[in-house]
Amino acid sequence: MLNRVRSAVAHLVSSGGAPPSRPKSPDLPNATSAPPAAPPQAPRSPPARAGSGGAAPARTVEARASFSRPTFLQLSPGGLRRADDHAGRAVQSPPDTGRRLPWSTGYAEVINAGKSRHNEDQACCEVVYVEGRRSVSGAPREPSRGQGLCFYYWGLFDGHAGGGAAEMASRLLHRHIREQLKDLVEILQDPLPPPLCLPSTPGAPGSSDSSQLVGPQSCWSSQKEVTHESLVVGAIENAFQLMDGQMARERRGQQVEGGCCALVVVYLLGKVYVANAGDSRAIIVRNGEIIPMSREFTPETERQRLQLLGFLKPELLGGEFTHLEFPRRVQPKELGQRMLYRDQNMTGWAYKKIELEDLRFPLVCGEGKKARVMATIGVTRGLGDHNLRVCSSTLPIKPFLSCFPEVRVYDLTQYEHCPDDVLVLGTDGLWDVTSDCEVAATVDRVLSAYEPNDPSRYTALAQALVLGARGTPRDRGWRLPNNKLGSGDDISVFVIPLGGPGSYS
Amino acid sequence: MLNRVRSAVAHLVSSGGAPPSRPKSPDLPNATSAPPAAPPQAPRSPPARAGSGGAAPARTVEARASFSRPTFLQLSPGGLRRADDHAGRAVQSPPDTGRRLPWSTGYAEVINAGKSRHNEDQACCEVVYVEGRRSVSGAPREPSRGQGLCFYYWGLFDGHAGGGAAEMASRLLHRHIREQLKDLVEILQDPLPPPLCLPSTPGAPGSSDSSQLVGPQSCWSSQKEVTHESLVVGAIENAFQLMDGQMARERRGQQVEGGCCALVVVYLLGKVYVANAGDSRAIIVRNGEIIPMSREFTPETERQRLQLLGFLKPELLGGEFTHLEFPRRVQPKELGQRMLYRDQNMTGWAYKKIELEDLRFPLVCGEGKKARVMATIGVTRGLGDHNLRVCSSTLPIKPFLSCFPEVRVYDLTQYEHCPDDVLVLGTDGLWDVTSDCEVAATVDRVLSAYEPNDPSRYTALAQALVLGARGTPRDRGWRLPNNKLGSGDDISVFVIPLGGPGSYS
Repeated sequence: MLNRVRSAVAHLVSSGGAPPSRPKSPDLPNATSAPPAAPPQAPRSPPARAGSGGAAPARTVEARASFSRPTFLQLSPGGLRRADDHAGRAVQSPPDTGRRLPWSTGYAEVINAGKSRHNEDQACCEVVYVEGRRSVSGAPREPSRGQGLCFYYWGLFDGHAGGGAAEMASRLLHRHIREQLKDLVEILQDPLPPPLCLPSTPGAPGSSDSSQLVGPQSCWSSQKEVTHESLVVGAIENAFQLMDGQMARERRGQQVEGGCCALVVVYLLGKVYVANAGDSRAIIVRNGEIIPMSREFTPETERQRLQLLGFLKPELLGGEFTHLEFPRRVQPKELGQRMLYRDQNMTGWAYKKIELEDLRFPLVCGEGKKARVMATIGVTRGLGDHNLRVCSSTLPIKPFLSCFPEVRVYDLTQYEHCPDDVLVLGTDGLWDVTSDCEVAATVDRVLSAYEPNDPSRYTALAQALVLGARGTPRDRGWRLPNNKLGSGDDISVFVIPLGGPGSYS
Repeated sequence: MLNRVRSAVAHLVSSGGAPPSRPKSPDLPNATSAPPAAPPQAPRSPPARAGSGGAAPARTVEARASFSRPTFLQLSPGGLRRADDHAGRAVQSPPDTGRRLPWSTGYAEVINAGKSRHNEDQACCEVVYVEGRRSVSGAPREPSRGQGLCFYYWGLFDGHAGGGAAEMASRLLHRHIREQLKDLVEILQDPLPPPLCLPSTPGAPGSSDSSQLVGPQSCWSSQKEVTHESLVVGAIENAFQLMDGQMARERRGQQVEGGCCALVVVYLLGKVYVANAGDSRAIIVRNGEIIPMSREFTPETERQRLQLLGFLKPELLGGEFTHLEFPRRVQPKELGQRMLYRDQNMTGWAYKKIELEDLRFPLVCGEGKKARVMATIGVTRGLGDHNLRVCSSTLPIKPFLSCFPEVRVYDLTQYEHCPDDVLVLGTDGLWDVTSDCEVAATVDRVLSAYEPNDPSRYTALAQALVLGARGTPRDRGWRLPNNKLGSGDDISVFVIPLGGPGSYS
């Protein structure tokens, strides 16, 4: 998430350190109050990660430290210090001894080159058992069912402006998903279409039949077909929202610092659900072919959504911003001239006469990695950020951010996968310097060097991807073989085999 | 546009006739006032279509009749009557004698099977000359330029609830585009990037240089690159908006009845711009390959935009509608039970407890051709509809409709086109019963029966497509060879050759 939140804000909020000596731009909106800064927290050793069978998310309110690494890395205190070393930037993977990650998943990570105090990426990989709520649909259609469900779960959480939100999400989001799925355990295992209506209390008769339909003529009398798949999608969507709500509630007492992008994979009943909120990315490499499994959500990709919101709710702009986009900042002396602009309805550009209110700061500005909402944040979906304000202002940014992921579904049963077919998840530290094709080439190169049944091949691949994005220290920087700069950001990668030695069938 | 606006509204507004004897559904929102009905207009012979060099759009305020056919059909009064005959449904094309349409464009149309009094589709095909405004950019960079520009233009307008909007759009939209392009004549012919800023008055010095940029470090200091192509897109987008605004202004005096979908093609400087607002469609068939050139805008495809608007501006729902979607209408006796729903953020479904306000009518309901906004209209983008209200209510629907098209660009110079490569435009009367593959097969079958340099082949193709969608009268209906029902809607088709005998290069 490097460079995606203005450094001044990030440093103040995350480390309590002095803001960097970056010159204040004359373009900043005028306001007087300072941004809220959380008190600095000394790093502590990570608390034990609660197992998947623990208490409901809402009750998990233990105090959290702002620095930890995934427990599956099994880091000793010394290992934790090495993982936190910006100078060495050692690549971390689960140890080759002991229990492997489910599906022989490969994982590797590396800390950033010094831009934030700790690695603000977090990761989670779990097998989660979902116990059904008793008789959810009133009269269970097959009483012998309802034996519970398992789902496999992988999550990457790229934090910004502090590590709290990413850490909390890595610890709790899968539990929110589990909670959402509890009502669906029977329904998902029943080949019949989901009931449209459930009784309010377990045991009461359901109304899943169609006898209450009105006549078939009018548009609203038809009954939409709802698939089992769309119920899982809805469960994941609502889990993201509840996770975000929990962060809002607990942000004072528990110091949920900053926010995070979330990229999550759920495997359930033959299908892979990839849910993304932010600028992490997932691709499938299948027989050399690249299948994108996510889309990035940034000020550029969501420009029209943001502008529409600013247009419909101008109070959210606080009189400081304009919802219009200009190719560059408008200068006061250009009043009355005509400048190119785009509004919330346009993808093209046109000229408009500059008026006084066009001199306000644009809601969306900048390009590529420098694109920003309200001159502050470079991603537009994710979890947390409830305290985030415009720099030197009290104006909240959260209303423009969405906690909802886009969920793509991949049916694992529709294709005979081979051991070299993989789903690759990476935070933007990987993708900023690595193209899809380069990832596919690395997949081919690394996996072909290992026996197909060697379970360590996916970890080796994850390490190769992280190393390839980090580069090696040379010429006062981390550089790639082509001498371009490597990623100075935190880099985290999961490699999930789709047809390998995993025993998920 | 058949079936896309509730019949009751359509009949009242368009023909002044009695509403059909369709039973009032108990599901209709409760309200007392009747929908506004325009006085009936007797059909008149179509007034002469003004040439493309006429007055500016804003001044074209002559009174219009609600029934006319495109002037390029050159229909005599008798021909006009035959074209208006629901029983015969004769296919209409420009006469094979006299001046052909530009690019030897093929065109065919047929009236509906009786669902509306007249053919509510309209079409336009023009070559439009754009004279540049003098010295738009202050100091022209090459004074010898600025000789004006020509663009080729095709438009299909599928009216609903009356023919006025479609007729007006077919007569004026290309002039709005011309007006928007006038400022760009010099800029588009200049190989330099467009100036970001123009002087307010012609002759004053421009500020297209980058000397006013602030430092390069901050996100808002960078200068976006704006392409010539995006200026044309912006011009088309704004032309649609101005056309819609003109309809709003003139709707009382000039009886601009109903609304219309608009599918427009502009060819300018080597590129084809396809702008679509509604449910007409355009595809390119190139060497047998199908390239979609538009997307449909319906209550289903725009569900989340509509729900978001209803959520952010609940006053637009008038206390009668809920922005939530349910798989079917919620019954009062289901209060307290849990029903599947989706909100503006969700693509999946989840269960929620039914509360009193969920008993309101859903903003978006129905599926496929029966999908509706506010139980009334089945398309969500287009021109007009300023008078459209919820049936038996005063609640306006226009705030939920967008007049902005989606514009796709196809670079004609990037591919060596052959005479069989065509761009096919059709109103939904074509596409409701014809798949893309069937269109491609008809393209192949018809064009291969003609010499490549026979200019009549594209008209023959358009006729074959219309005939194939209409079918023949059999078994009390218009039926296709497979005995399925043909389209009872108005059907209009343009076939634009991309590499044929047209002299557009």
